[in-house]
Amino acid sequence: MEKRQNDILQQINTPDDLRRLPVERLPEVCEAVRRFIIEQVSSHPGHFASSLGAVELTVALHYVFDTPDDRLVWDVGHQAYAHKILTGRREQFSTLRQKDGLRGFPFPAESEYDTFSAGHASNSISAALGMAVADNLAGNKRKVVAIIGDASISGGLAFEGLNNASSQPNDLLIVLNDNRMAIDNNVGALHHYLLKITTSQRYNQIRYRAYRTLRKRRLMSDGLRRALIRFTNAVKSLFSHRQNIFEGLDIRYFGPVDGHDVVRLVHILRKIKEMKGPKMLHLCTIKGKGFAPAEEEATIWHAPGKFNPETGERIKEDSSNLPPKFQEVFGRTLVELASADKRIVGITPAMPTGCSMNLMMERFPSRTFDVGIAEEHAVTFSGGLAKEGRIPFCNIYSTFMQRAIDEVIHDVALMNLHVVFCLDRAGLVGADGPTHHGAFDLAFFRVIPNMIVASPIDEHALRRLMFTAANATQSGPWCIRYPRGRGSNPDWQCPLAEIEIGRGRCLREGTADVAVLTLGPIGMEAAKAIEQSGVDAAHYDMQFCKPLDAGLLADVFRRFSRVVTVEDGVRDGGFGSAVLEEASRQHYTGEIVRLGLPDAFVEQGTCAELYQLCGIDAASISLAIKGSENGVKGE
Amino acid sequence: MEKRQNDILQQINTPDDLRRLPVERLPEVCEAVRRFIIEQVSSHPGHFASSLGAVELTVALHYVFDTPDDRLVWDVGHQAYAHKILTGRREQFSTLRQKDGLRGFPFPAESEYDTFSAGHASNSISAALGMAVADNLAGNKRKVVAIIGDASISGGLAFEGLNNASSQPNDLLIVLNDNRMAIDNNVGALHHYLLKITTSQRYNQIRYRAYRTLRKRRLMSDGLRRALIRFTNAVKSLFSHRQNIFEGLDIRYFGPVDGHDVVRLVHILRKIKEMKGPKMLHLCTIKGKGFAPAEEEATIWHAPGKFNPETGERIKEDSSNLPPKFQEVFGRTLVELASADKRIVGITPAMPTGCSMNLMMERFPSRTFDVGIAEEHAVTFSGGLAKEGRIPFCNIYSTFMQRAIDEVIHDVALMNLHVVFCLDRAGLVGADGPTHHGAFDLAFFRVIPNMIVASPIDEHALRRLMFTAANATQSGPWCIRYPRGRGSNPDWQCPLAEIEIGRGRCLREGTADVAVLTLGPIGMEAAKAIEQSGVDAAHYDMQFCKPLDAGLLADVFRRFSRVVTVEDGVRDGGFGSAVLEEASRQHYTGEIVRLGLPDAFVEQGTCAELYQLCGIDAASISLAIKGSENGVKGE
Repeated sequence: MEKRQNDILQQINTPDDLRRLPVERLPEVCEAVRRFIIEQVSSHPGHFASSLGAVELTVALHYVFDTPDDRLVWDVGHQAYAHKILTGRREQFSTLRQKDGLRGFPFPAESEYDTFSAGHASNSISAALGMAVADNLAGNKRKVVAIIGDASISGGLAFEGLNNASSQPNDLLIVLNDNRMAIDNNVGALHHYLLKITTSQRYNQIRYRAYRTLRKRRLMSDGLRRALIRFTNAVKSLFSHRQNIFEGLDIRYFGPVDGHDVVRLVHILRKIKEMKGPKMLHLCTIKGKGFAPAEEEATIWHAPGKFNPETGERIKEDSSNLPPKFQEVFGRTLVELASADKRIVGITPAMPTGCSMNLMMERFPSRTFDVGIAEEHAVTFSGGLAKEGRIPFCNIYSTFMQRAIDEVIHDVALMNLHVVFCLDRAGLVGADGPTHHGAFDLAFFRVIPNMIVASPIDEHALRRLMFTAANATQSGPWCIRYPRGRGSNPDWQCPLAEIEIGRGRCLREGTADVAVLTLGPIGMEAAKAIEQSGVDAAHYDMQFCKPLDAGLLADVFRRFSRVVTVEDGVRDGGFGSAVLEEASRQHYTGEIVRLGLPDAFVEQGTCAELYQLCGIDAASISLAIKGSENGVKGE
Repeated sequence: MEKRQNDILQQINTPDDLRRLPVERLPEVCEAVRRFIIEQVSSHPGHFASSLGAVELTVALHYVFDTPDDRLVWDVGHQAYAHKILTGRREQFSTLRQKDGLRGFPFPAESEYDTFSAGHASNSISAALGMAVADNLAGNKRKVVAIIGDASISGGLAFEGLNNASSQPNDLLIVLNDNRMAIDNNVGALHHYLLKITTSQRYNQIRYRAYRTLRKRRLMSDGLRRALIRFTNAVKSLFSHRQNIFEGLDIRYFGPVDGHDVVRLVHILRKIKEMKGPKMLHLCTIKGKGFAPAEEEATIWHAPGKFNPETGERIKEDSSNLPPKFQEVFGRTLVELASADKRIVGITPAMPTGCSMNLMMERFPSRTFDVGIAEEHAVTFSGGLAKEGRIPFCNIYSTFMQRAIDEVIHDVALMNLHVVFCLDRAGLVGADGPTHHGAFDLAFFRVIPNMIVASPIDEHALRRLMFTAANATQSGPWCIRYPRGRGSNPDWQCPLAEIEIGRGRCLREGTADVAVLTLGPIGMEAAKAIEQSGVDAAHYDMQFCKPLDAGLLADVFRRFSRVVTVEDGVRDGGFGSAVLEEASRQHYTGEIVRLGLPDAFVEQGTCAELYQLCGIDAASISLAIKGSENGVKGE
């Protein structure tokens, strides 16, 4: 059995091969793809449950549409592993998410079948609409399909796309892959709405049959068709006791349909493929479909790490003696703070487990808000809470915070509201790659007036910064950024104490004529670098990028003729540039070497590989400390 | 008559005074407020038509709700003049939009009646929801009302707010002030949708009467109420032939109602005020209501400048000998480019008249896209168009571009797509104040990999940059920023010629030991400053912030021991910081004085006043050129 499944995959090197198969063999293809994903991801960790749920959908789409000439636009690439496997990348699949390997998300530079970048949610409808309109202008007849999950569709960008879908002539098909799950549980009214229309199958069957009959008998004039849609929508409301939001936006709605019946999917897609105007096909799928443990606990199996593909036993590293993750320290410290001060509330856009806000959610459910994939709302909602005297800790991954920069400026900083933004996964994130690195936050946040920008070197500093921020009710907005992963203190539970705002500290005095200035946990790498370099350099942990400690810098500029700055964000515009600005103010004429991310999108790899690539690993920092006599420059 | 109207306004210094009047006198109050707005705005220019449409609504809200304890959250302050007049600011109204005067938008620091910043659209629902939830947590019983226009509600942030409105316990009231107009015509499916539900009054009357009757007779249990809502929604669909989007999102919907019948509004607001849960009241209003010319041409009367309050004749400045506005040069040049290259398309989020995209819209309607208030969609849609070989010119005001920074990064720059972002109203905008200054674009855009960032010193340079960008199809994304208002060349229609990318130019050699580096039209101010200073300084127009002309700078650093940079964006992080970074790379040890906007939100005023305030007017630049021997520093 397994042999045969593999055989059929061996025959499919491109979607053309798939399209040559008779439709009856598609369930066999699906089974083989699913088995392949389970085997691969069990030993090469990646996203899992989403792609399992999209196998039949993917097979049906490539079977019915003429890819790559027809365009498939995937919204968030989690769901796109089957797509990669069927489009010539099966052999390389074991390199997934590794340096120079396949990316975890679709990306045009990787394959002509990947039409658009798909690391941030909710962009597929707008991108696909652009493609469809462009084709229309060019007189092409290609089809464009956006495939979006029920979590992604709650983002504001997706709504803007839906609202514009009927504005221009286009035949866009939107496939709503509804698995009732974000990474965590889905939230928001739209989610309940989708759930409820799904429970009213009866009406849809009637409507589908009526439509089919009329079409077959060529009784369907355009005017009649429109009248029928209006009438059936009204009837549908009676059946479903709900309203159809999508048809309210002039998008024809079909569904919901079982997303795991590949043969039926092929029939339906063939039918609606040629229809004019924007339309939506709503599929119900099961996240983790075909792998029982994942079907039961989809959140855990979103990206499970290595596991036994037969038993589903997850292979966990022994972390008993390791320092905790910054995420866990955040989550547990927030609960401590919230226990002591009932004004504190927590806000997360769809990442309670990832950022450990789930700890606060369990303890203080009425004071913790998962707003779904809605970063903009998360920030403005936090602004409203702060305006009425709450102290919001709003936790957003650094890369997703880019979605809400305007709200940080206009709805928080401009009114000097006391919101504590905690930017998780700041700096390089490793395998998720260029769409997910938190590269820009320092450059963006430090130029916003009223903003305090800090980064903790370790778990103790994170706790103290959070405590300081919570107590500093007379201050305005804060940004506390910290990376994905573990810190450096297994014994992390230090007493809470305040840090003086804007004050750096000297970690090492040094006797050589060079000072290393660092911000955040990269300081631990710099400390290693100083040891390796053999140079007795001074080391300062600046703690705050803004306000920058001008007094400390005055001392540094007086004592040292060389300064090395190290950060894990963009080198131009970030922390090092802030040091340059202060140096210019103080008329410093020594040399300042800035280490940080280059002016290029950094690829995927392990963090160690990427640190080396960007010249911010201990060895590179060490060379910079040793300086130009060794012919090495920071840039 | 006029006397009496003024008398009644004289009696209303706070909403308490208003609330002491009998309801029959409210029409008289409305008439007086309207007359006051017409008189004031005719001589002190500001936004006009929106506020005229919201007079009855404003009076009714302050009459029914206990402001300021109850919270009114206005979405985009255009509509809030009546609110300012009724809340103790009538006497200062003549200072509107002037330096140190009343702001054009609500702002908490100005009045306790202003609950949230309201310069950028679509934020009111999220902010009000935050307030309502905070009050709920605190056990307060105050009411919170968001007032949002039909244009603002199409923004993604507003949808995220709507989608979350029913997720937390709250009694939020959303008033949808539907005047069928953005600043230009409204677009998008939601707009058509609102129009269509408005045409089905019959159903709403039935429903309202049924509800009222049952309520009066206390026949309305909670279960029964829910059943009734479900049933009536279905009936409503039959009547309206449409679906109710808002009830699909679990927000109870009432309306549409005539927004100019103040007495009826008071009755309705009193009825729904105490209802539990989130709800929406849909009002139909007329933009410009009560002033015939404005009712007829609402776009022109959005912000008409001075006019005769009796005749409606607009008092236009004689501009025949003035240089053209950058906006007009953009619009006319785009038409030229688009005539020569059919791949060029134009995209604007709701600002076709403001940015002159309307010229392209008239000439090439199928290639010009006004997507409504939806900056995120505008950018990602442009990305999709570019992916399929179109050359999108996407014009967004600098301050509103903050809404789409992530889309610029993820949906354009990461794929190195050739989209030309034209940032209108970059730098200081004058009377619109801190919510509208384009202060951050240089700092944000220059750190995005693959991005080319340029700013033209005058109309000729704008045309050449646009031409260069259109032709540079092998390059990735561009950002061309230019300010609101007039340039410096009445004879603007130069031949189109390419500029070398990343190349600055020397405007003046100079013999003194100081070089002035400028970016954009502020260069004209610097040229004046050099004349005033009496110092024979060199002057370089850098043209590109990125790539920065390192060769030119090498020459400058070799020849001059002092460098002054001038820009009209944030000083820290912007163009001057880019020069500092290059100076550091080149080991320059001379002095660099950076002039630009301070690390604070800049207030409103005339541009001349604000340039002086920020130290970037000719006199301030002149002092910086003369340097420290005069005891003057750039900072």
